[in-house]
Amino acid sequence: MPEFAALASSITHEDISQAFLKGQGSAETPILRLLKESRSNGYDVTCLPLTTAKWRERWRDMCILPSAGGADSEKIAAAEQQAEIWRRAPGFALDEVTISRLDEAEGIVAMISDWLQLDSTDDWLRHDSEIALRQELAYASYLNVLTVILPPPRNRAHVASYARAVNECLKSTPYIQFSIRLPIYDPAVFQPKESPVRRSMDSFSSASSSSTSPRVPKLTIPTSQTKKAKPPKAPEGELNATWEMWDIIRTLCDYNTRLTLTLDLTPPLPSNLAVLSRWTAEPVQHIFLPASTFIANVKGYPVLPKGTQSFIRDSMTHRPTIILSGTSLGSHSKGGESAYSQYVRYLEKTSLSVQAARQAGTVENFAQGYQDFLQTPLQPLMDNLQSITYQTFEQDPVKYRNYEEAIFHALMDWPDSGRIVICVAGAGRGPLVARSLRAIDRSRRQAVVYAVEKNPNAYVTLQGRKDKEWGDSVELLFGDMRQINVPEQADILVSELLGSFGDNELSPECLDGAMRFLKVDGISIPSSYTAHLAPLSSSKLFNEARASKELKYMETPYVVMFQNVNILSGEGGGVGGRCGSQVQECWEFEHPRKDPIVDGRGLPLTNSHNARFSKMSFHIPHAGVLHGLAGYFEAVLYGDVGLSIHPLRKDQVSKDMLSWFPLFFPFRDPLYLPSNSELQVSIWRLTNQRQVWYEWYAESFLPVLNPPLPTEQLDNPLGSDSSFFACASTNVAVPSPLIDAVDAFPHSEKVESGRIDESPKSDAGIVKIGQTALHNPGGRSSWIGL
Amino acid sequence: MPEFAALASSITHEDISQAFLKGQGSAETPILRLLKESRSNGYDVTCLPLTTAKWRERWRDMCILPSAGGADSEKIAAAEQQAEIWRRAPGFALDEVTISRLDEAEGIVAMISDWLQLDSTDDWLRHDSEIALRQELAYASYLNVLTVILPPPRNRAHVASYARAVNECLKSTPYIQFSIRLPIYDPAVFQPKESPVRRSMDSFSSASSSSTSPRVPKLTIPTSQTKKAKPPKAPEGELNATWEMWDIIRTLCDYNTRLTLTLDLTPPLPSNLAVLSRWTAEPVQHIFLPASTFIANVKGYPVLPKGTQSFIRDSMTHRPTIILSGTSLGSHSKGGESAYSQYVRYLEKTSLSVQAARQAGTVENFAQGYQDFLQTPLQPLMDNLQSITYQTFEQDPVKYRNYEEAIFHALMDWPDSGRIVICVAGAGRGPLVARSLRAIDRSRRQAVVYAVEKNPNAYVTLQGRKDKEWGDSVELLFGDMRQINVPEQADILVSELLGSFGDNELSPECLDGAMRFLKVDGISIPSSYTAHLAPLSSSKLFNEARASKELKYMETPYVVMFQNVNILSGEGGGVGGRCGSQVQECWEFEHPRKDPIVDGRGLPLTNSHNARFSKMSFHIPHAGVLHGLAGYFEAVLYGDVGLSIHPLRKDQVSKDMLSWFPLFFPFRDPLYLPSNSELQVSIWRLTNQRQVWYEWYAESFLPVLNPPLPTEQLDNPLGSDSSFFACASTNVAVPSPLIDAVDAFPHSEKVESGRIDESPKSDAGIVKIGQTALHNPGGRSSWIGL
Repeated sequence: MPEFAALASSITHEDISQAFLKGQGSAETPILRLLKESRSNGYDVTCLPLTTAKWRERWRDMCILPSAGGADSEKIAAAEQQAEIWRRAPGFALDEVTISRLDEAEGIVAMISDWLQLDSTDDWLRHDSEIALRQELAYASYLNVLTVILPPPRNRAHVASYARAVNECLKSTPYIQFSIRLPIYDPAVFQPKESPVRRSMDSFSSASSSSTSPRVPKLTIPTSQTKKAKPPKAPEGELNATWEMWDIIRTLCDYNTRLTLTLDLTPPLPSNLAVLSRWTAEPVQHIFLPASTFIANVKGYPVLPKGTQSFIRDSMTHRPTIILSGTSLGSHSKGGESAYSQYVRYLEKTSLSVQAARQAGTVENFAQGYQDFLQTPLQPLMDNLQSITYQTFEQDPVKYRNYEEAIFHALMDWPDSGRIVICVAGAGRGPLVARSLRAIDRSRRQAVVYAVEKNPNAYVTLQGRKDKEWGDSVELLFGDMRQINVPEQADILVSELLGSFGDNELSPECLDGAMRFLKVDGISIPSSYTAHLAPLSSSKLFNEARASKELKYMETPYVVMFQNVNILSGEGGGVGGRCGSQVQECWEFEHPRKDPIVDGRGLPLTNSHNARFSKMSFHIPHAGVLHGLAGYFEAVLYGDVGLSIHPLRKDQVSKDMLSWFPLFFPFRDPLYLPSNSELQVSIWRLTNQRQVWYEWYAESFLPVLNPPLPTEQLDNPLGSDSSFFACASTNVAVPSPLIDAVDAFPHSEKVESGRIDESPKSDAGIVKIGQTALHNPGGRSSWIGL
Repeated sequence: MPEFAALASSITHEDISQAFLKGQGSAETPILRLLKESRSNGYDVTCLPLTTAKWRERWRDMCILPSAGGADSEKIAAAEQQAEIWRRAPGFALDEVTISRLDEAEGIVAMISDWLQLDSTDDWLRHDSEIALRQELAYASYLNVLTVILPPPRNRAHVASYARAVNECLKSTPYIQFSIRLPIYDPAVFQPKESPVRRSMDSFSSASSSSTSPRVPKLTIPTSQTKKAKPPKAPEGELNATWEMWDIIRTLCDYNTRLTLTLDLTPPLPSNLAVLSRWTAEPVQHIFLPASTFIANVKGYPVLPKGTQSFIRDSMTHRPTIILSGTSLGSHSKGGESAYSQYVRYLEKTSLSVQAARQAGTVENFAQGYQDFLQTPLQPLMDNLQSITYQTFEQDPVKYRNYEEAIFHALMDWPDSGRIVICVAGAGRGPLVARSLRAIDRSRRQAVVYAVEKNPNAYVTLQGRKDKEWGDSVELLFGDMRQINVPEQADILVSELLGSFGDNELSPECLDGAMRFLKVDGISIPSSYTAHLAPLSSSKLFNEARASKELKYMETPYVVMFQNVNILSGEGGGVGGRCGSQVQECWEFEHPRKDPIVDGRGLPLTNSHNARFSKMSFHIPHAGVLHGLAGYFEAVLYGDVGLSIHPLRKDQVSKDMLSWFPLFFPFRDPLYLPSNSELQVSIWRLTNQRQVWYEWYAESFLPVLNPPLPTEQLDNPLGSDSSFFACASTNVAVPSPLIDAVDAFPHSEKVESGRIDESPKSDAGIVKIGQTALHNPGGRSSWIGL
């Protein structure tokens, strides 16, 4: 059984010291012995600190100057001299690093010195931390280390400096993967109150030479478990702040694909909180899970708190590397060192998404390898499909079962007056023909089936099936349903022309042409379909979509099996109660439809009646970055038999249906959405005489409970006579001082008749804060015919 | 005297009818006669409507269906049939257009039918308006019309549909300039209350066949001046809404350079309002100025209200085309038709900016032709300048006058103990040497001047001047000030190494090297300089910066003489009072400086001491789009003699100084900033052993007077046990339900010691709403030496 998570052990400085003592005289280096031990304990990866306490001491002595008070000025000058010499040519002494051979570095994940302060408030500490970071990365690169974990950002106010330094290093260090360690909580909660400045030694005076110091948040392996401190609260704001820091870092690094996250689960997680789902949209490469996060179950074995359990279970399908640390400290009375990794494997086994992926017949299993892979939607009208494509879709057990049910019920409901004519429009290799015959059989009605197909290659397969299986019960007709002549009018028209967004494979246009041979009161299966949208966050899909560089490929929808994504919208209507649900309907197509004006052949004169527009308002409960829209469809085949890939309804309508992955409409420019904001999405289905395509646009708003104050007084600090606008916010139409020039202001007779409903007045309590647009719609579905 | 504004006349349907009647039998067409008349009246351009009332009637009969009530269904069907035939192949009849010959279209500006409703709430009206727009543009293109004016958007809620249609047309119509007519007020103020829907004829039933109808805001030429309606108020929200519509249109059109604005000044303007300055950042191609906007002065001549006067005066340097209309209606008792254009020329003549541009010796005059032109900053350290470059800068009358004053005062303040040594570091062609000699002369002190120069070509000029002008009073030294040996220590070191941002031409680095030969208590002229920033909006500069396509040229600062720009920040500190002033200081360099650690030659070991960082908060009073940062410098030469290009202080410090235009730091991605928001800007001056460069980043926030409500209940509509966060917003640390597992939550001893000052708590009333980042800093100033 393939495993989803990789397991990593974490080697500490203490482990290294002990290995050194134990292995005196051994031919192998202590590090090599530790790595071998880790592998033999079943770990796939080993993490270890890159530098030693010696390095930290030297850096501190050079870069943290004693406070001016009782300091020895000669000593300070000497330290400053040392620092300058170091800054000029940064490098390590042998005892300042843990590894020094290529074989020691093979396959390891190196932890960059966690005491670096890339976001310190002190300019010099920041500056020298960045030089140290570059030095450590250069050394890791020398030893061919492939992945490093960076210390967490700690200071929201200076995180841009952290981000800038990381971006600089990503550019100057070509191959290494950078993973930013980040606790799910705002680390400031853990940070002692102090103002760290380089010119004072005070803040470092209590620091021991151990690998942790009071300056560093205790998010690394805790060494003391006796202190029973109150756990800090983690309100929405704190959770936002942590994610905000990550968002700033990856934005400043321009979504570099070598930049990933190491989520630090040291703080306990709430058991059920929608806000955690935002991490599913981010590149979480590692999950840091110290033994201290485990609690003891009634038998004394280490287990995880409920919230952490479910978070890890849900994360499994993203194939993280889970870094266990402190497993040898004996923090739990039962189970020994291996209990922690066994428990993680148990969580993997009991993860619903892992189970679904491992079980044949599920969408999750069917989609293995296709997750977050951008596929260009099929264009079956323009292109003739391959036999293998038909075969793939014919394997869907649910879709054809539901089609058969729909045809069966339609037959049963049809007046039993002799011979019923069924026409399958777009028969392909014949699955719907076969299902029609079975439905006829079950219904015990008299019926004949016409099978229309325009793909000459599939038509060969159809002829074979007619010869061998169907005989006279089926009549084959070769041609495009928009042009062909069918010998008699059909009672029931069956088609399978739907795409992931319903109409995106031009089902409306094709069925317009087929209406010519459906009786006026005939039945169309499907009888209607709707398109649905939700706002999506996914740094993965954003990067995939822009990978092609060509604009037209950035601005075209894709078929995608979503995995590394998060739907940003929530239920609840928003602060103003004006927003719709989490996933919203855009538009509907119904068949048969009677409104088009048709020509002598019964074909519509233009395709204008198939143009559509929809504008939706989504409530965004938690801050996130909009990267695109998720598109779904739902179809009524007949009566209450349907097909659905709507994420909240698909299991009720057509569970385990495999044929459609959702559609992804990317935005070229990500749009930041704050908590409690409102997102207005516009989408158009457009058409000319040859093509059909979509365009989309989003605008964000923030409800402000009090409308903005008048700002004129602030704008004109020097004073002015602009009293025209002085009572702007009173909403009372007072005469302006200019009104004495009466003739100057002629107005339409309708001026006083009021305002239309869409006037901005109705938005008085809401402020626009951003937008993202589609400039250059690509992906037009060519539309043969007319 | 060159003119700044072009004047356009506006021909109406009535003018055309009258020309037709008057010219019976003439060889020329009525349109050609009208164009000739317009030219002979002194107009540079003529605007005319492209279509006639006949076209409007046909479109209405096809596309606006009678209401279902008493309508004739056969008639409806016929209309629908006609509409479909038209949609299939849109085209005009001869009497539906005003022009049909190439010579009639030459040099005109064509007004697209102003009754088109591209942003109607009705799907069909929108759809058919777009087809009509394409048809009109195709016809204009056929006749080689170069500029069209589009009807104004009228519906904020559907302006994205308007924008999308315009974008589509821009792409399908390659050469025509599109100008969007836009009143400075929200046109909804003028709009009658109705719900226009295609399926009802009611809303059109009162429409006459004249060129205006109740559906169309009366922003075109008013025909009735007798009705004394109250002028509508124009509060901030209304003004924002109009600009917001423009912003959406140009954003959806991706800042297409063929898209401009026709600002409609039909509504009267307030006399002094900062919010109008936003239009200076936009591509205002035309200003529409109907005779009805003019008021009569005491003598009965047409004049403009104060606000409109000053707006037009300020707009003159942007060289707009001012479209006058209704000048022949005789609305004012004196002056006749030509009074209006004469008045506009009078405003041009009395515009302060036009006067400045016309007056020799001003920056405005000096900069003619350089406005908004992006220049790569000089790198005089890396490159040896050309003689012509020196000559240009030597023409500055103010800069060298101030230098002489500074040297004079320094000499006077220096203890009069015999011989004073002045060293000019970077003498170029010698202007500072000459000024030093004049200052010595004025001060009647004994002094000698050393002139150091590393440009071998300029050194030839220096030798010539020494031979002919200076003699023994000056000693020339060839070499780089960071390496050269000067025979004696200087009392006064004079340099002119400043760039537009102060330190951007590496003055700090050069002077570090020159400190070797300045006495410990010597004077440096300049003694200090500061860099200043302000957030900038300019669609022009945004387009200029991205024109190169190459990312590194998008992310590098430019020297620019600003014109088509708007500074977004205001005074006043913002809602929280935490913001600084409109233009803020980033950092300072002082000389002589003593802090660097130097080597045996007296040179700094590294350049770390010249790294800088600054974070500033700006108050944004009115919504706008951030495109970059404006950079300025201010220098203290000596005492109270300085140099400044700071926009609010330059006139006090060094009025009419020509040598420096400001710096422009572009952002690759524009950032929308709402009214009353706060912008936090970070900027870094970075250095390695070879180069110096800047990076910059901005984040926007919106103060919310009430902190966000807890949203957990909304997130989990199905209910959950996530009580962990239920009291998230109460700011009280309550024990979580998980706390019973005590041992699971070890924390650092410092957990309870509080939070540092920068924790997000201090931002409780503020919500992050966006960011824009520099990913790939270009424009590193190479730094020879060390």
